[in-house]
Amino acid sequence: MTPEEFRTAGHELIDWIADRRLAIEQRPVRPNVEPGDIAALLPVDPPDGGEHAAAILHDLEHLVAPGITEVQHPMHFGWFPSNASLSSILGDVASSGLSSLGISWESSPALTEVEEVVVDWMRSLTGLSADWSGVIQDTASTACLVAMIAARERATEHAQATSGLVGFGRPLHVYTTAEAHSSVRKAALLAGFAADDIRLIDVDEFSRDMMADRLADQIKADVDAGGVPAAVVVSLGSTGVTAFDPLPAVIEVVRPHQAWVHVDAAMAGSAMLLPECRHLFAGVESADSLSWNPHKWMGTILDTSLLYLKDPEHLIRVMSTNPSYLRSTSGGEATQYRDWGIPLGRRFRALKLWYQLRIDGPDEIRQRLRRDLDNAAWFAAQIEVRPDWDVVAPVRLQTVSIRHVPPELRGDSDAISEHNLDWVRRLNRSGQAFLSPSTLDGGWIARVSVGVETTERHHLQRLLELLDSYAGSR
Amino acid sequence: MTPEEFRTAGHELIDWIADRRLAIEQRPVRPNVEPGDIAALLPVDPPDGGEHAAAILHDLEHLVAPGITEVQHPMHFGWFPSNASLSSILGDVASSGLSSLGISWESSPALTEVEEVVVDWMRSLTGLSADWSGVIQDTASTACLVAMIAARERATEHAQATSGLVGFGRPLHVYTTAEAHSSVRKAALLAGFAADDIRLIDVDEFSRDMMADRLADQIKADVDAGGVPAAVVVSLGSTGVTAFDPLPAVIEVVRPHQAWVHVDAAMAGSAMLLPECRHLFAGVESADSLSWNPHKWMGTILDTSLLYLKDPEHLIRVMSTNPSYLRSTSGGEATQYRDWGIPLGRRFRALKLWYQLRIDGPDEIRQRLRRDLDNAAWFAAQIEVRPDWDVVAPVRLQTVSIRHVPPELRGDSDAISEHNLDWVRRLNRSGQAFLSPSTLDGGWIARVSVGVETTERHHLQRLLELLDSYAGSR
Repeated sequence: MTPEEFRTAGHELIDWIADRRLAIEQRPVRPNVEPGDIAALLPVDPPDGGEHAAAILHDLEHLVAPGITEVQHPMHFGWFPSNASLSSILGDVASSGLSSLGISWESSPALTEVEEVVVDWMRSLTGLSADWSGVIQDTASTACLVAMIAARERATEHAQATSGLVGFGRPLHVYTTAEAHSSVRKAALLAGFAADDIRLIDVDEFSRDMMADRLADQIKADVDAGGVPAAVVVSLGSTGVTAFDPLPAVIEVVRPHQAWVHVDAAMAGSAMLLPECRHLFAGVESADSLSWNPHKWMGTILDTSLLYLKDPEHLIRVMSTNPSYLRSTSGGEATQYRDWGIPLGRRFRALKLWYQLRIDGPDEIRQRLRRDLDNAAWFAAQIEVRPDWDVVAPVRLQTVSIRHVPPELRGDSDAISEHNLDWVRRLNRSGQAFLSPSTLDGGWIARVSVGVETTERHHLQRLLELLDSYAGSR
Repeated sequence: MTPEEFRTAGHELIDWIADRRLAIEQRPVRPNVEPGDIAALLPVDPPDGGEHAAAILHDLEHLVAPGITEVQHPMHFGWFPSNASLSSILGDVASSGLSSLGISWESSPALTEVEEVVVDWMRSLTGLSADWSGVIQDTASTACLVAMIAARERATEHAQATSGLVGFGRPLHVYTTAEAHSSVRKAALLAGFAADDIRLIDVDEFSRDMMADRLADQIKADVDAGGVPAAVVVSLGSTGVTAFDPLPAVIEVVRPHQAWVHVDAAMAGSAMLLPECRHLFAGVESADSLSWNPHKWMGTILDTSLLYLKDPEHLIRVMSTNPSYLRSTSGGEATQYRDWGIPLGRRFRALKLWYQLRIDGPDEIRQRLRRDLDNAAWFAAQIEVRPDWDVVAPVRLQTVSIRHVPPELRGDSDAISEHNLDWVRRLNRSGQAFLSPSTLDGGWIARVSVGVETTERHHLQRLLELLDSYAGSR
């Protein structure tokens, strides 16, 4: 494809993207497809090439786009806000267009240094001290794995360099709660910790926050049995019901044992942009690592996950490789981000944040987050006063967990659970709104995650009407 | 940023990208910067926002772009071809524009199913049997880590689900060679294998291919000592000197021990597109996993790394998580790619391949690869006949490893090594061409990696002139 062909096709594609955003409310939130439906529309055999970009754009519009769930839709309340601000998309396009290669400082000095500057801007905007050094990871799952491996090596005094976990011989414990994101357990297992050695600490019945005294008891029991407390993963704003584990108390318990404290604020970290929310993150300065995703509520397009570390030198010792073909031939000291994570090659992801921060700016982003907090509080209040509806977990930020209990089902928890799963499914299938069904104490509830960039109060008003209609019409 | 503002800024950015490609030869290959130079041009404090996209594009042009190494430049012969075809960039822009979220089939059915179709197209185009199932990873480093974890769990019969490596108690061995990419050792260590248990098998002196009989000896010794052979990582086309380990012989040795065989063809995998090169990949059908990077020589923009597996169900058991908030509410069976790798969230990367294959097409890509093979063979022949120059490793594909031995330095290997590092550095600093200095048997050599999309014969002719000039002018 020549640059001139790219120019023409690129202009068409940019127009298509702008037009889709303008018309987003005219589309269903969720596609009406079953597994295999999209694949069946595509040829089994590879193409021969030579097609005009316009033909592909036609297929993108008619075959592919109708098969995505529109997470940018203002009636999308599922999972978490997966905002992709148009400003950050521009940064993504710039990154693709530059087509540079991040395998070392030398392979793209600007890629490394813009990332250093931008993650430091983000540190400053979220009120973190200058003791933190940051890096962009793809997702918080990967960031957690990186933290777990760092924790493993700190607890074993770099056993990987000698006889490893097999030779270490003592149980290595990881502590978290059942409310922690599924990626936490996955990360611990992938890092080589044993399922038998992962401790799920009891949580408060209503808030679902970790109980620090139970953590202390468990650590004591494990140490008495000869185990080593390697890591504690603290959720600040869990994905499910926005639980905030009591970090200062956890730090107090963990300090004598020197376990690695990783803070998973993947979803809620955006709230650190708001000074009035920072009390929720108290104690964070005493942690070893912190990860959160601008690619969620803040709105930097996926994949933009921030990982901050207190002691990056430890991570570099764990992760570094330095074969001759990657050795820098430049004189000075340069950051080599390949030693801050798993992949060698990296994209120029910093441009996504660079564009978003310069175009939208912190103030506009903060206003939007405050709007969402207001909307969630308003929505929860509407639910509270509605007969037969409950808010089933504290509304710490922008997620409202709700349950409908029709009078005739009262006392029958199985029937209530089934009813809630049923109306959520029917509502989702309608394409008019999308909520995540979730479970709490073994029963189905509905999570309303407020915070899509385009979601305004009137969309929540509309959601209330849909709830009445779908939950009321069994 | 509104869709209309995005439209205007997007058009400007597309033009900028097209113009940069048109003018690429007018720029130096390598920026003339020292560590810290780029960061010093950027504000320390975060921006206030509200800037016009044109101001950012101005800074992109004047502050950022001059700080990247131009890996798309036809005089770039460093590391490996990191081609970013404009067709695949269009696919990347389409992915960003769709802004969909891959955390489950349901969150974006098309994202999952287009990926399934496209990785199967790639399987077919590379002559692999239908026994393979594929997935896109970010890089081959990550793919290797995924393979090492899968190997670990197969060798230990899913020890992670019980008492893990700590409880396993027997040494778990990984076999590879010193020629394997640095990411192989890193992956093994991150997966929890011990440095003491990683075996670097001897290689042939000239070709640098693994010696299968030495592998057999080492495995026997390890098994006799109570160890478990967990994995063998076979390089097919190593990054350094394009070593091809003898896969059929390795398979023969490994079979009785059931160790996982992972084939790392990150760089050279593109050659599987050429039927006449497939003999180099003989035996691949007997491996357990295979990874290669379309984002290298083939030219799909980073990050597009393919991982193929014989038994994806095993990987899914190792990697899966299924909390209630991710449970699919659809009826049928759907692929959940989150269980095929580390991150939960994924971008719609399949569109990069979809665009490239439909626009450029397999034939055009194959012609380009053949051109590069011809150019590399021609260039090696020119070096061979030049006085004082050596080709120091077999030219298996498109990488030519060379050394200049001036008559007055003959016999002084230290001086020869220093001389070669010196002229490569001076040439690279000139910005006229870029080669990777590399080491072979402890001495510096130069790697000429042919294969940038725009590199034609006359660029190699020009490189020969530069070699004479820089190596001759100490």
